[in-house]
Amino acid sequence: MKPALKGHKIRVFAPATVANVGSGFDIFGFALNTPGDEVDLCITSKPGVQIKNIISDFEDLPSEPDKNTAGVSIAAMLEYIKADYGVALDLYKKMPIGSGLGSSAASAVASVYALNCLLQEPLKINELLGLAIAGEKITSGDSIHLDNIAACLYGGFILVRSRDPLDIISIPTPDDLYCTIIHPRISIKTSESRQLLKKQISLDSAITQWGNVAGMIAALFKKDYNLLSRSLKDVVAQPVRSILIPYFEDLASSAIKAGALGCSISGSGPSLFALSNSKVKADQIGSAFKKVLDNHDVQNDVYVSKINQQGPKIIKVAI
Amino acid sequence: MKPALKGHKIRVFAPATVANVGSGFDIFGFALNTPGDEVDLCITSKPGVQIKNIISDFEDLPSEPDKNTAGVSIAAMLEYIKADYGVALDLYKKMPIGSGLGSSAASAVASVYALNCLLQEPLKINELLGLAIAGEKITSGDSIHLDNIAACLYGGFILVRSRDPLDIISIPTPDDLYCTIIHPRISIKTSESRQLLKKQISLDSAITQWGNVAGMIAALFKKDYNLLSRSLKDVVAQPVRSILIPYFEDLASSAIKAGALGCSISGSGPSLFALSNSKVKADQIGSAFKKVLDNHDVQNDVYVSKINQQGPKIIKVAI
Repeated sequence: MKPALKGHKIRVFAPATVANVGSGFDIFGFALNTPGDEVDLCITSKPGVQIKNIISDFEDLPSEPDKNTAGVSIAAMLEYIKADYGVALDLYKKMPIGSGLGSSAASAVASVYALNCLLQEPLKINELLGLAIAGEKITSGDSIHLDNIAACLYGGFILVRSRDPLDIISIPTPDDLYCTIIHPRISIKTSESRQLLKKQISLDSAITQWGNVAGMIAALFKKDYNLLSRSLKDVVAQPVRSILIPYFEDLASSAIKAGALGCSISGSGPSLFALSNSKVKADQIGSAFKKVLDNHDVQNDVYVSKINQQGPKIIKVAI
Repeated sequence: MKPALKGHKIRVFAPATVANVGSGFDIFGFALNTPGDEVDLCITSKPGVQIKNIISDFEDLPSEPDKNTAGVSIAAMLEYIKADYGVALDLYKKMPIGSGLGSSAASAVASVYALNCLLQEPLKINELLGLAIAGEKITSGDSIHLDNIAACLYGGFILVRSRDPLDIISIPTPDDLYCTIIHPRISIKTSESRQLLKKQISLDSAITQWGNVAGMIAALFKKDYNLLSRSLKDVVAQPVRSILIPYFEDLASSAIKAGALGCSISGSGPSLFALSNSKVKADQIGSAFKKVLDNHDVQNDVYVSKINQQGPKIIKVAI
């Protein structure tokens, strides 16, 4: 296997993702057009991975390749393809770690997708998935965010029907579905947020949840926003995880008042997402979100986006 | 409100139904073309309900109107419409009580549908649902089989997204989807079968189940039989309820060998259902099912049917 663009440098974007999506705890995810991470990647004659620069507005990230999700994924890929060369990369973090927006998944996916493009696509998307999972393991331990990784890599709305064996299904979304995100600048570690969840749930809650899960899928196929709104309720994770998010109830009710179909926690938080059926409403929800946190002097970032249908994409290739 | 066909007699068929459908415990149901119950109904000047005859190949049913699902539903309907007249009916039970095929739901639905037709449809289908539910209460107590009643009344494949408030969604099914039923002639009371279920389930099992629930809905919309087959797995009720069904494992594996997409318990059993994508396979599954129980001298009934899309229907109206 010979790298066809060995002297080139490629820049790739990979999208932020919303996992869980209300009722679909651990099984639903979708990709956003903004924010997302970018990576500049080139092949080096020296074997191994070098992370040269991490450019971020947010907290410092480890640049040691074995502690960084991008570095681990690329190292796994180089081993998988038995490469006798290496990779150097710059990482442009456009979103913070621990935001609930699939930040680590985006870095991992951007990196393996970039290398695969430079190599003229020797690997299939399912193989890239396995390599990005290797990267995620370092940030999430045993609980890998397959819903984030799969949504980031495939784009669109995905269902992780099963983890073992892996079974990922693409679900169509209406063209005018918009997502508004608010990220309060506080950090919640997924592992801590996960510890809040009980290992047992009542059968009644489970039935409520899978009724909503089925309703969500039906709503997306039928383009039925009313049903989507009724189904976007999480009775399992949200009631406990929302405790960690400042002003959660105020944020959620402000989104609904501004026209949201529903609002819940993105991944394990602290970001919230709200869905709506127009750009105008999505922007209004963003303003309403921002007002709540600004009033309490909580630093925040707001993003408005359609559902990203493409997954990672090449920004540029240069010599 | 005046009965327009007061001197007429109407005969109505209402379909048997498969509830739960693998992973969709308490939320999925679909209707069959065969078997089903029939009711002959006419209006009487004497107020109240008389059940004149119950014609059945199976066990005796109570003909006291207040102990019979058809009688209670009709009584509720007469009260609801403030009727100053009554109803007399004959009930043709084409399937046994306690079979897991929605027998009591079919009698209730056939009766209220018949009276509504005779009265030239003063009530909407949602109102009939409420009245059939009243009938179900006497056979099932607190755990009303909304999945059976809704599938019987609406026809097709239904999702009970929520019970309170009631939210029923119709899900499309592929034209060539067939169902094979085997009913072992043993009786399991739903209330007993329900007691076997634990009130708490592990979060891991719940996630597996709602992954499959989402997979089932996606499979039906996509007409993806492979996905349907992978999703038709119940990790919550089947493992405990199957213990009550003689030769369950043999039956299920015989269905799969004969080409079934999947096989599980119909409602709370003892009937099993298997789905397939052709009449030929559905018949072969029926033969395979029958062979297993015949070999063990267990009396049984086998039914092969497409998904019934219509719900109840008028067989004839006579003066």
